[in-house]
Amino acid sequence: MIRMEAGRGRSSDTDNGSGNGSADTSAAGAPSPDALLPRLSDRDLKILRYVGREWGQVLEDPEVWRSALPVDPNLGGYPDAVSPKRFGRFVPLTGLPAVEAEEEAEAPPSPLGRVGHHVRRVLLGPPLAGTAIAVERMRKLVALPVLSADALSSVAYGPEAMLAVLVLGGAAGLRYSLPIAAVIAFMMLAVGVSYRQTIRAYPHGGGSYIVASDNLGRVPGVVAAAGLMIDYIMTVAVSIASGVEAITSALPALAPSAVVIGVAVIVVLLVGNLRGVRQAGAAFAAPTYAFIIAVFTLVAVGLADAAARGFQPMPTPRLPVTEGVTLLLVLRAFTSGSTAMTGIEAISNAVPAFRPTEWRNARTTLTWMVTVLLILFGGTVALVHLDGVVPHGNETVLSQLARRTFGPGVMYGYVQAATAAILLLAANTAFNDFPRVLFLLARGGHAPRLFLRVGDRLSFSNGILALALAAIAIFVGFAGNTQSLIPLYAVGVFLAFTLSQAGMVVHWLRHRDQAHWRKSLVFNATGGLLSAIVFFTAGITKFTEGAWVAVLVIGLLVLLALRIRRHYDLCTQALALRPHVIELPRQSAPGSGPRVRPTAMPPMTADTETEELEELEEAESEEYPEEVGHLVIVPIARLDLAGMRALAYAASLGQPLLALHLSPTETEAERFRGYWATWGDHLPLEVVVSPHRAIVAPLVHYIETLHHQRPDLTLTVILPEIVVRHWWQRVLHNQTAPRLRRALRRLPKIVITTIPFHLPR
Amino acid sequence: MIRMEAGRGRSSDTDNGSGNGSADTSAAGAPSPDALLPRLSDRDLKILRYVGREWGQVLEDPEVWRSALPVDPNLGGYPDAVSPKRFGRFVPLTGLPAVEAEEEAEAPPSPLGRVGHHVRRVLLGPPLAGTAIAVERMRKLVALPVLSADALSSVAYGPEAMLAVLVLGGAAGLRYSLPIAAVIAFMMLAVGVSYRQTIRAYPHGGGSYIVASDNLGRVPGVVAAAGLMIDYIMTVAVSIASGVEAITSALPALAPSAVVIGVAVIVVLLVGNLRGVRQAGAAFAAPTYAFIIAVFTLVAVGLADAAARGFQPMPTPRLPVTEGVTLLLVLRAFTSGSTAMTGIEAISNAVPAFRPTEWRNARTTLTWMVTVLLILFGGTVALVHLDGVVPHGNETVLSQLARRTFGPGVMYGYVQAATAAILLLAANTAFNDFPRVLFLLARGGHAPRLFLRVGDRLSFSNGILALALAAIAIFVGFAGNTQSLIPLYAVGVFLAFTLSQAGMVVHWLRHRDQAHWRKSLVFNATGGLLSAIVFFTAGITKFTEGAWVAVLVIGLLVLLALRIRRHYDLCTQALALRPHVIELPRQSAPGSGPRVRPTAMPPMTADTETEELEELEEAESEEYPEEVGHLVIVPIARLDLAGMRALAYAASLGQPLLALHLSPTETEAERFRGYWATWGDHLPLEVVVSPHRAIVAPLVHYIETLHHQRPDLTLTVILPEIVVRHWWQRVLHNQTAPRLRRALRRLPKIVITTIPFHLPR
Repeated sequence: MIRMEAGRGRSSDTDNGSGNGSADTSAAGAPSPDALLPRLSDRDLKILRYVGREWGQVLEDPEVWRSALPVDPNLGGYPDAVSPKRFGRFVPLTGLPAVEAEEEAEAPPSPLGRVGHHVRRVLLGPPLAGTAIAVERMRKLVALPVLSADALSSVAYGPEAMLAVLVLGGAAGLRYSLPIAAVIAFMMLAVGVSYRQTIRAYPHGGGSYIVASDNLGRVPGVVAAAGLMIDYIMTVAVSIASGVEAITSALPALAPSAVVIGVAVIVVLLVGNLRGVRQAGAAFAAPTYAFIIAVFTLVAVGLADAAARGFQPMPTPRLPVTEGVTLLLVLRAFTSGSTAMTGIEAISNAVPAFRPTEWRNARTTLTWMVTVLLILFGGTVALVHLDGVVPHGNETVLSQLARRTFGPGVMYGYVQAATAAILLLAANTAFNDFPRVLFLLARGGHAPRLFLRVGDRLSFSNGILALALAAIAIFVGFAGNTQSLIPLYAVGVFLAFTLSQAGMVVHWLRHRDQAHWRKSLVFNATGGLLSAIVFFTAGITKFTEGAWVAVLVIGLLVLLALRIRRHYDLCTQALALRPHVIELPRQSAPGSGPRVRPTAMPPMTADTETEELEELEEAESEEYPEEVGHLVIVPIARLDLAGMRALAYAASLGQPLLALHLSPTETEAERFRGYWATWGDHLPLEVVVSPHRAIVAPLVHYIETLHHQRPDLTLTVILPEIVVRHWWQRVLHNQTAPRLRRALRRLPKIVITTIPFHLPR
Repeated sequence: MIRMEAGRGRSSDTDNGSGNGSADTSAAGAPSPDALLPRLSDRDLKILRYVGREWGQVLEDPEVWRSALPVDPNLGGYPDAVSPKRFGRFVPLTGLPAVEAEEEAEAPPSPLGRVGHHVRRVLLGPPLAGTAIAVERMRKLVALPVLSADALSSVAYGPEAMLAVLVLGGAAGLRYSLPIAAVIAFMMLAVGVSYRQTIRAYPHGGGSYIVASDNLGRVPGVVAAAGLMIDYIMTVAVSIASGVEAITSALPALAPSAVVIGVAVIVVLLVGNLRGVRQAGAAFAAPTYAFIIAVFTLVAVGLADAAARGFQPMPTPRLPVTEGVTLLLVLRAFTSGSTAMTGIEAISNAVPAFRPTEWRNARTTLTWMVTVLLILFGGTVALVHLDGVVPHGNETVLSQLARRTFGPGVMYGYVQAATAAILLLAANTAFNDFPRVLFLLARGGHAPRLFLRVGDRLSFSNGILALALAAIAIFVGFAGNTQSLIPLYAVGVFLAFTLSQAGMVVHWLRHRDQAHWRKSLVFNATGGLLSAIVFFTAGITKFTEGAWVAVLVIGLLVLLALRIRRHYDLCTQALALRPHVIELPRQSAPGSGPRVRPTAMPPMTADTETEELEELEEAESEEYPEEVGHLVIVPIARLDLAGMRALAYAASLGQPLLALHLSPTETEAERFRGYWATWGDHLPLEVVVSPHRAIVAPLVHYIETLHHQRPDLTLTVILPEIVVRHWWQRVLHNQTAPRLRRALRRLPKIVITTIPFHLPR
């Protein structure tokens, strides 16, 4: 009994929306089909067994049912009867009674659907079997470029974002660029060291959502996830915007089509990710290394040039001073520059993708990445300072540096191409991460279940689609302008950083037995504190510039997620099996009934169950076959073949039956009654006169009234439905069946059955 | 036998798409609910009786069914059980077993639907009962203004349209205005006299569609209807455009918002007509009389002024000559001016609306109307000539005349207001006529049946809506410019005129016994010939200016109508009852079977029936209850309450049953089999492994394969469907049931049953 209670308690503790304490929900990260059909707990199994016993008492011998089957369910015995043309053939697995659906069985059945299916296949490739999920293990030299594209690409827009604010203060403002850059570099170091601790503590992958929900609780976890989601959307928007700017800096003629190009690139990324391109790790390594080499060379050559002139800064052009150099300006420049840190968390999410020993390799790679990041970032800022480059609208800072350093030519083109490529790759990273966060949220019941579904190319198609749509909306809404997008960016990232580091602090406090917990705690606390400072600074100083959008969206996402979770929790409760024994003691004394109740299952204690029942007063309860009382209702408009077939089907069920006809006038009603008599008046008919010519509402009213007369009955409404060949023909027929179905759906115990009638041609 | 054949033949001859020779389809014009449920022919009744006899042999005593009913179908016996709050209460009519649905039963059941319902009620008023249709009989002095608004209002744009073309030729062109006007006036006379014949021949209303289809055949009738529909759409667009121009001529400040004003006016007309404002005949008379008085006064005062200066034409302003005065220019001017004749047919459609003797009163009114039209048209053109007025973009010709004649003041304002009012009224006339044409088309099976439906305010809501949408599209598409709309106008009107008059010629040739048939024939032939000349002239000379749009749309409408008719004909054939006796002789010798076939009904002759059967090889045939072989399939995803209820419902039907489960992997399949065993393995279960994670396609494939195994079985697929409270929650649940329903719909003998499971809150 205590174990059962504990099981229940545990399942509410873990983030499993279904409420069934599934054994493997704690193994985070890797998507598993278990998420869709959670394992049953011991208590659930007990209830199931108990319910089954009740069924056993009311149903005949299972063998009777089995022998009554007019078909071979295994399909194996009738190979000739199977038409193999349309969807391929079922392959019965040897030794196993299960039937496996072949690839072609996925094709949708309608002709239009089939066309769409073929287009999809050409675009996305054939479906992959679930067993094709093979965890690729990456070498460090492959992991570095693949996982650090997001972080390193930030160098393309981070310094520029900082300078774009400082330049408002003119030459006096620009003087702050080096100190601010130094602070940011220190932060990179601190956060990097902080994430080293996370990697050690979460060798199975410690994304912000997991760390925060594990250590801080459900709501902080959801908040971190919302922050991350905004982060990924912004990563796509900013990377694409910045990448397009890299291109238009080199080819100014393309500038007017920047938005179109950006949207097209997002669509290409969408299709590519729906295809589930995964094995291209090596190909993905190229742009990152190309970019590292490009910026290294740029910085080296630039510094060499500067050294030649004794590190004398070049004069900046005369700048109009539009703002005084205030603390606010400096803080805004700092938060804008902090976007150079985005993506630093990527490695900590992907620890299981490394070769063993995973966490050790991951840590090393993280160290490498932060080092490279520091060099690229610091080098770029220094070079900007020395070369006296100032951001202006038409050309990126990096492009200006490259043009100055190499002159227009091959090297300049190479830098721009590498920049565009790594930014594209960074955007692509978000396409891997965003659906994963949504998957984790959905597994915890905080997002719609459709994000759990792995597409037939083994990618989370719905999450990928959601990201692409959101990114396109943001990108178009801000006209693809990097500088307008930046203020929205920092908020989400640093919110997730803060919660993740705070979670780690709690983690270390809970695990004081681990080695170096004190040192780790200090590192994490420092990282968390710094992240929090950036978060609040960004939120406050950039609020009017766009940060309010990010804050608002994060808030809405969190509210939505909590509401969704509440709904799923209610669902689980409502759908839980409720054996009669819970309710019976109130109606009759135990054992007094004619039927013997099994005693192996102890009756549920009142305190756990009445609570649930009160919550679910409106929920419908368990029913056994013998308890279903039938009344079949056949709304019949004309005595034609479709109507007759509905009547024949209804009568063949052998249950009480009532035919219903709706007439606009008494005269018409009389006439229909005449036809019914001509037919032979074989079945009970009721004619309802509806002078207002409405069809659905009077039927619904009539059926509802019958339901109120006898709420114990299950009313089966049998509707003939004319099925047309072409969609346009649907306009030609009154869509009574779907309308009636929609109208009756809200009533309990009303079952809708549609008998299709197919029109030729 | 011969009678049956003839009955069949007749039903194909008349324009009844249902193929059942309905006795009252020839009584044209008045909408009757019969159209929705046509009367059965003698042959149909015979077949029905025959089918009924077969049922009698396979069903038990009707009394058994009746006594098995667990409810009182008349609802009378359980007055307390009826909850009267939601939809009002059913009122059982005394002495009649029929149940009448009260007004409130019309309210849609969903909360959102109820809000929409209330908005609708406020906007459109409460529903009217079908018995509220009372034919108003109009006095001639009321009929004249109501029915001639369309025709007389043409004076506001007809002359202007003519002049707008002539002015391209400069002063030389304008010289042709009087001769062209004389020809148009002669045409008005000729067409007017022609329609006098129609009124006599069709005292029940002789619209172009009816006259053309009666005398020329189905296709010309449809062509005439298409022409009329375009005419009515253009009437709305042109009248509103011209009315708005009358307003902006007086108040130039409103000119930039002309399109918005026009659309708003169309929307007001839409709502007004959906309300079914009909009793406002007297109110409708005012604008017409006001307009007649205004233009009469204008012409009288203007001519008096001209007389004062000895009828010396005023000099026209210097005009740039943009085109030579060619025959083409003159013809274009003529066809543009002919739009002044539109609406002349209105009285012939509405003969039954007159007081007795209807046709005589209608003829007199027509004569009055043509007289008034001639005076107004002739007077206006003469005044334009004398005053030297020239059309220009910002002010209508009528406004210029009024301003010149009266000066800016009360009289000028009155003329403009009266013009705007009658144009509005003319547009409103189209809202009465267009849905009627669509109704007639739909009754003949040439338009979707939804146009047969009379709204709950007794107006053809769907037709009204269709007209408003089409008119808005045209109006906005041509930016509310009268002169751009005119070229589209003439084509449709004169096509309908031509076909109508041609039909009348055939009519007189067929009815040579009637008085004055020769004279009438000559009048109609003259009118038809002249209309045909205008039609072809307009079609050819204005082709590139926009007439091609009208010709194209008419052509498409005709093709669409014929296609729709073909579809409905196929439907009727497919849905016709087909007693077994037709097919049985091929299988076994008559009388050799164990069951006695009734002999009262002679077996159908092969020549009539085999033909039909060949056409319908794919159609599904008649079935009797005893012949329905059942297999119930329950796709079950989880063993929760919803799944259990579906199983319980399925088992309670007592038919062979197979539960189906879909698993992504073998392991999961094994686990579910375990749960099934825990439950007790009471019913046969089949687990299908779908490694591609698709749900719908493998289920469809499996069920289809079962269908191919045993095509004789009716497969009932029972699906639990989770019903949520709020629409947004629907995203949170996999919509398997609707998707499966859509996918399975195309398969024959597969019945879909949904068991709703309602979530609390």
